[in-house]
Amino acid sequence: MSATPEKSSLIERVVAGETRAVARAISKVEDGSEDAAQLMKDIFPHTGRGLVVGITGAPGAGKSSLVDKLASLYRDRKERVGIVAIDPSSPFSGGAILGDRIRMQALGLDPGVFIRSMATRGNLGGLARATVDAVSILDAAGYSKLVVETVGVGQDEVEIVKAADVSVVVLVPGMGDDIQAIKAGIMEIGDIFVINKADREGVYSTEKELEALLSLSGREDGWQPPIVKTIATESKGIDDLAVAIESYRDFHFRTNLGTQRRRAIARWRILELLRDRLLARTLASDSASDTLDRLAEEVATRRSDPYSAVEEIIEGSRHKAAGEGGAQTTDHSTTLD
Amino acid sequence: MSATPEKSSLIERVVAGETRAVARAISKVEDGSEDAAQLMKDIFPHTGRGLVVGITGAPGAGKSSLVDKLASLYRDRKERVGIVAIDPSSPFSGGAILGDRIRMQALGLDPGVFIRSMATRGNLGGLARATVDAVSILDAAGYSKLVVETVGVGQDEVEIVKAADVSVVVLVPGMGDDIQAIKAGIMEIGDIFVINKADREGVYSTEKELEALLSLSGREDGWQPPIVKTIATESKGIDDLAVAIESYRDFHFRTNLGTQRRRAIARWRILELLRDRLLARTLASDSASDTLDRLAEEVATRRSDPYSAVEEIIEGSRHKAAGEGGAQTTDHSTTLD
Repeated sequence: MSATPEKSSLIERVVAGETRAVARAISKVEDGSEDAAQLMKDIFPHTGRGLVVGITGAPGAGKSSLVDKLASLYRDRKERVGIVAIDPSSPFSGGAILGDRIRMQALGLDPGVFIRSMATRGNLGGLARATVDAVSILDAAGYSKLVVETVGVGQDEVEIVKAADVSVVVLVPGMGDDIQAIKAGIMEIGDIFVINKADREGVYSTEKELEALLSLSGREDGWQPPIVKTIATESKGIDDLAVAIESYRDFHFRTNLGTQRRRAIARWRILELLRDRLLARTLASDSASDTLDRLAEEVATRRSDPYSAVEEIIEGSRHKAAGEGGAQTTDHSTTLD
Repeated sequence: MSATPEKSSLIERVVAGETRAVARAISKVEDGSEDAAQLMKDIFPHTGRGLVVGITGAPGAGKSSLVDKLASLYRDRKERVGIVAIDPSSPFSGGAILGDRIRMQALGLDPGVFIRSMATRGNLGGLARATVDAVSILDAAGYSKLVVETVGVGQDEVEIVKAADVSVVVLVPGMGDDIQAIKAGIMEIGDIFVINKADREGVYSTEKELEALLSLSGREDGWQPPIVKTIATESKGIDDLAVAIESYRDFHFRTNLGTQRRRAIARWRILELLRDRLLARTLASDSASDTLDRLAEEVATRRSDPYSAVEEIIEGSRHKAAGEGGAQTTDHSTTLD
């Protein structure tokens, strides 16, 4: 590989499982630093060994406790566990609001567990891309269970969980009148459903409702998503969840659906990255920031509209590309002559 | 304007407030159809009159009931109300899972209310862009209250609510151990906080917690976000919510913060649209779909990685642009001669 000595050393250290190198590599992809692309190209051949478990559900469902207890179970089995938690954040503040520090108190002293919170940084975010890249880095570093935890059922969050090998949706009993809506929205993404806080009132009716909805939906692949009841705070049902995860994994590989899913995930990863890259390229020039400020002012005061503004930006970057293109064309014809 | 007669007629009908024209215009921006850009350019000068109210919060918080009751209140005051509801959806299914039909039963027979559910359509989504465009169309059509309702606290959803004139965050009592996380995530986006289902146990402690968090955060603009208690299903507290919305609107205009916020929103709209447009342009050619399929297969089988795949796509489209650019350069030098 054509990496510089410094870079290949970071890769080597990641692959050797060095925690500090892993943290640094993740920061690079999160910041979208210039050498992140080469880093990920070098990382990629080392990935594909870990099992990626996506865990999602509404805020208040107790996902964090569940993830922590599941991680402890895997640790008892001597597996190394990487956890990537996606924090909700505002586009205006940037940065994770809950740091890794709170979680680290429980699990963080164990060198076999790596926890990282991810958050977007404003509009140029690329949260989904950064998250899947972080998971790939942990995979390359030899963590055999890779847990991605997301708050909420937002679009990005759903896509991130979809990119997992196994998707777990966490519900709680008696979520009220929106429960049909929630279930409809997440029905398709759940390979396994967890009813957490299963000591609460309403467990039975939530389970029956969920069963009814699952029997209606009928997956193409023939998988029957199991419903696992847990009380995460008391470590109850965590074994059952681990068994369900293994069952789906086995089913997945046995039926060769893995291939199809991996292709869909690959396609999604390419599109996410492409979107980020195209925007970054277009806004890369020194004058782009000034142009953007001016156009935002024009749109805000209704002297222009977003569509005309975007056409101006694309036109501007096209002319630059055309300039470069012109030079290339000339070189090319010289060669032909 | 240079629009064709057919197009200007659609615009005229939208501005005249014709429901069917509004529905058609929104479908156009949702589908990203080719004439959507010209449509939005024509729409834009007619916007800026309505008040955009963003309503968000966790699933199960009772947002839909709250929105319906607020809409009824505005209807009693003879205002026309446009509602855009964002449904959670999977990137693999596309399409709104809960249709407009359920909601329409309650409010839909009233011609003064327009309800539309929005959902992404796969990876090329542009949900945020489509949503703000739909709001602009309703604004141009003379709806004076524009309510955007989103499920979840996902990244896109947060951004959409941020693009509102007034942002309302809905909580329920006793949401459990994740409440700190939820509140931290949404603290910055709430201009007004609603504790719905205020007849439930735990109202007092939720209110105290929220007050404590709000006193810690301290907004730059000096606004003190009020906490409104409601029982939406019984129409209780809806008046108070309407008063709080008006107060923030007045504050907003009095302090001239409107200008600043509008500039931030304009900037965000431009970037969202730019992102969509760049991706659409790059994937527009006939061969792009085949290339994407091939690259997805290569990445899925680890013969390539996403970063190399994206470089190949960008390189391919650059060469095409360079070809066009070459021709332009030639024309240009001819003119100079």
